[in-house]
Amino acid sequence: MKKIILTGDRPTGPLHLGHYFGSLRNRVALQHEYDQFVMLADVQALTDNAENPEKVRNNILQVALDYLAVGIDPKQTTIFIQSMIPEIAELTIFYLNLVTLARLERNPTVKDEIKNKGFDNNIPAGFLMYPVSQAADITIFNAHLVPVGHDQLPMIEQTVELARKFNRIYGEVFVEPEALVPEDVGRLVGIDGKAKMSKSLGNAIYLSDSPDELTKKVMSMYTDPNHLKVSDPGQVEGNVVFAYLDIFDQNKAEVAELKAQYQRGGLGDVVLKKRLNVLIQDFLAPIRARRESFAKDPDAVMQILKAGTAHARSVAAQTLCKVKKAMKIDYF
Amino acid sequence: MKKIILTGDRPTGPLHLGHYFGSLRNRVALQHEYDQFVMLADVQALTDNAENPEKVRNNILQVALDYLAVGIDPKQTTIFIQSMIPEIAELTIFYLNLVTLARLERNPTVKDEIKNKGFDNNIPAGFLMYPVSQAADITIFNAHLVPVGHDQLPMIEQTVELARKFNRIYGEVFVEPEALVPEDVGRLVGIDGKAKMSKSLGNAIYLSDSPDELTKKVMSMYTDPNHLKVSDPGQVEGNVVFAYLDIFDQNKAEVAELKAQYQRGGLGDVVLKKRLNVLIQDFLAPIRARRESFAKDPDAVMQILKAGTAHARSVAAQTLCKVKKAMKIDYF
Repeated sequence: MKKIILTGDRPTGPLHLGHYFGSLRNRVALQHEYDQFVMLADVQALTDNAENPEKVRNNILQVALDYLAVGIDPKQTTIFIQSMIPEIAELTIFYLNLVTLARLERNPTVKDEIKNKGFDNNIPAGFLMYPVSQAADITIFNAHLVPVGHDQLPMIEQTVELARKFNRIYGEVFVEPEALVPEDVGRLVGIDGKAKMSKSLGNAIYLSDSPDELTKKVMSMYTDPNHLKVSDPGQVEGNVVFAYLDIFDQNKAEVAELKAQYQRGGLGDVVLKKRLNVLIQDFLAPIRARRESFAKDPDAVMQILKAGTAHARSVAAQTLCKVKKAMKIDYF
Repeated sequence: MKKIILTGDRPTGPLHLGHYFGSLRNRVALQHEYDQFVMLADVQALTDNAENPEKVRNNILQVALDYLAVGIDPKQTTIFIQSMIPEIAELTIFYLNLVTLARLERNPTVKDEIKNKGFDNNIPAGFLMYPVSQAADITIFNAHLVPVGHDQLPMIEQTVELARKFNRIYGEVFVEPEALVPEDVGRLVGIDGKAKMSKSLGNAIYLSDSPDELTKKVMSMYTDPNHLKVSDPGQVEGNVVFAYLDIFDQNKAEVAELKAQYQRGGLGDVVLKKRLNVLIQDFLAPIRARRESFAKDPDAVMQILKAGTAHARSVAAQTLCKVKKAMKIDYF
């Protein structure tokens, strides 16, 4: 039997190139080897978007379109909606009894996020709890592997702790999952060069960007602010255009030559940006085409999610049945 | 349409006279007037009994027998098991996003309980959250009224806050419940006279006590420790036997006379205890008989719970459907 792998995204916006290189392309590859579940984490998205449910609602379809566009194949991958699996909520409630408040407050990932989101003393209880909800997401599908970045490793630790504690108290029910940390591709930097690509920073290139939007973004990329005239020597390090050429340009020799020329002086940003624009346009064109083709029939996409959700629910229900039996609350 | 009233008990032990005078007798009366839901709160019981699920499991039947024995009528009252209503868990998760951690930590009832249970810094997250779970219990059944003691008023406040916040953000779904604080009967003191009757203090007379157990408990009741000889004057205040005679003895004139005689001296504890024992035996005999009769067929009792749970679930499912529609997560 294939091992089970679980990943997902919070549907708070369309997906961008950072998602593609960080996870989507791995999912496309892994779906052949593993029994893959991909979750549209709307409940988790609501933990800090409670007052903005339209955003979550609308992005379910957008993210699903992104999945299908990059080649996640619903025949091989179960794509499902978190809120439609009540068993996850039930297991979350049971797990909450097996973890102390102090332990949740020590979680480094959550601590960072609380700081970044500026919650101060107004942390929604649900936000603090979300690692527990994630543990339920992962274990209810008996996932062996969870692809995560380094910053998410504390989440997997928390999950293993909960699965282990449950198994110790109530008897063996859960698989202890492992993190699958992808080979570091280098985090894709945003077009402003300031930080990793992220929707909230407004520095992202979306899989769904139109050719014009894409061109505009590439032409506005951060380069070397001291490279004022073509004849000036320029910096390659921290130069977003070169960072992207390293990823998109297969002609490594020419890129090396361009870097040398840029550093000597005599090579303008516009030339480089035009070269990069062609490459990203070529990369995104087939993805965009598939996306537009699926977008013509949103009902069909929702049907894919419905079928995936039904399958996911049947797996979750089987696990919860074992959970309740182990906890001796299987009354009738 | 009748107004809806919701109450319940944590199935952590059989019920005692404190429960009877504090709530059970009101439920028997209220079931005619209201559409009454009575919840066996096993999920809540697990918040501080996670490592002891047998206790919770076994007491489901015991508490149900107590209900039936005192005259809670399943034809008029929906008796149901909390863990079998997944919609409560789902709503709890949604509510957790609408309350801050700081607000939960301020809840005076929970603060007291955390102190009493000696959790120190090892507060199970689920325990801190249980007012949110209670808010879900109450509002998912659209309860207008929740009978509670004064010490539980902060729980109803928390529920009203959550219902109001949900309605404000997502649109009107929930009834804002009101507390129904019963006329103060004086908390039934335990047989040791030290505190209110409570299972954990070991000072309780159970509805299921045998005649011999009952006699033993009455004969060991705390009276006046300085009333050593029959001829000594004795204290009525703080004397458990007189506190109980005030409740169980309908002959108020005779009780007044006994009190006067006791205070003068010349009246022994044993005489009084025997009088009280007869009265409580008479009171508990029909309850015990009904209990024993139901206990002969535990399957039939579980069938009553199954039917009640099915009805409760259909009500909860209707509410959750409105909740998800309001939150715009009703995808298909």
